[in-house]
Amino acid sequence: MSSAAGPDPSEAPEERHFLSTAEAAALERELLEDYRFGRQQLVELCGHASAVAVTKAFPLPALSRKQRTVLVVCGPEQNGAVGLVCARHLRVFEYEPTIFYPTRSLDLLHRDLTTQCEKMDIPFLSYLPTELINEAYGLVVDAVLGPGVEPGEVGGPCTRALATLKLLSIPLVSLDIPSGWDAETGSDSEDGLRPDVLVSLAAPKRCAGRFSGRHHFVAGRFVPDDVRRKFALRLPGYTGTDCVAAL
Amino acid sequence: MSSAAGPDPSEAPEERHFLSTAEAAALERELLEDYRFGRQQLVELCGHASAVAVTKAFPLPALSRKQRTVLVVCGPEQNGAVGLVCARHLRVFEYEPTIFYPTRSLDLLHRDLTTQCEKMDIPFLSYLPTELINEAYGLVVDAVLGPGVEPGEVGGPCTRALATLKLLSIPLVSLDIPSGWDAETGSDSEDGLRPDVLVSLAAPKRCAGRFSGRHHFVAGRFVPDDVRRKFALRLPGYTGTDCVAAL
Repeated sequence: MSSAAGPDPSEAPEERHFLSTAEAAALERELLEDYRFGRQQLVELCGHASAVAVTKAFPLPALSRKQRTVLVVCGPEQNGAVGLVCARHLRVFEYEPTIFYPTRSLDLLHRDLTTQCEKMDIPFLSYLPTELINEAYGLVVDAVLGPGVEPGEVGGPCTRALATLKLLSIPLVSLDIPSGWDAETGSDSEDGLRPDVLVSLAAPKRCAGRFSGRHHFVAGRFVPDDVRRKFALRLPGYTGTDCVAAL
Repeated sequence: MSSAAGPDPSEAPEERHFLSTAEAAALERELLEDYRFGRQQLVELCGHASAVAVTKAFPLPALSRKQRTVLVVCGPEQNGAVGLVCARHLRVFEYEPTIFYPTRSLDLLHRDLTTQCEKMDIPFLSYLPTELINEAYGLVVDAVLGPGVEPGEVGGPCTRALATLKLLSIPLVSLDIPSGWDAETGSDSEDGLRPDVLVSLAAPKRCAGRFSGRHHFVAGRFVPDDVRRKFALRLPGYTGTDCVAAL
């Protein structure tokens, strides 16, 4: 076919895997306001799917006992809530999660998700043992910052955690966007976190185009077909009852 | 080993698969009050797992187009809410659910779950086409009554729906307990619904001992190990990331 008659190359199908920050916010609003999804429900679906993505990238039978230890670093916003749910499901899947959650949200949802983890005997670290992470854990989950969330106070615990995560030699899994990256441009993708695995929640954000790690999963099976069409999302199909798909 | 030194036969391991009504209520209270699970969260987990159980008993690739049509009959209580979530996930898994939900709850959770199904274009029936069900659908999901819930007014829509479900020639899947059965004794198990598939939510209730259908699944992977131990539940292990296990 003549390319002259084809779509604008800037609108080529693979480009449409990605949502701008405004589109991602509009999609979430549509789910919450029009579809009446609850935040508890969405966070549970995303956290469960994130844990499933970890099992696909790092299957339990292939891991040594030490490699099953997962440090989940949670921020105070929604991304951190997804991290708490991810940690709980990882425990259910027989991994050994530990949580670092330095800036706690007062939000009831966060508090309840924290209680669930505490009662399931998932350890919470009171500080990040920067020197020991590579020795003590098999992998790290970055649930620190979501799209458009700033690390807060310079020198605060989230900024310090990000500095530590930049120095990891063990695998890093980022939820939704690698913390500190600009959701739109991916700037800081050179100088910032370099995750091995990215789990896009609902749908990939534009910065995911700069991701160059080994595995990119999308955890958005719960997004209704009509919403996918509305946002012109062309994503790979999910198989069977899988809640994540590899991109 | 001498049986004289062994456990009381009435406490034999297989008996401990089952919870009494009081134990089931205590387990749910523990999840809600001590572990701070939200009702939205539990209903989502149970409804998702119920849909996965349907896919295991009736795998999509083995079904004709007509067999993929699933009538989900929902009551006004928690069992019905789980049915609404099950219907949504069945649609996501590419089945063709239709819902009959004659007595609507005013509860916000039920209303939100109903909106999600409506917006996803899952049809709601305004009456149960008793004569046509066996021809129109491939299978039926019974989410009418949960443990300890009465059908309400004699001659009301739930009672009439149960009478219809007793006459099915297509497969029937009951969620938690077959509607109308006594959760404890399973009385009415002779004269009542005879499901082909039972999906026990959290853990099997005592009446499940009277179940004689083809597939019995337990959807309780979210129940923390400590709670399982506390209620002396000896259940089969879940595999990989499976949210249901066959008993």
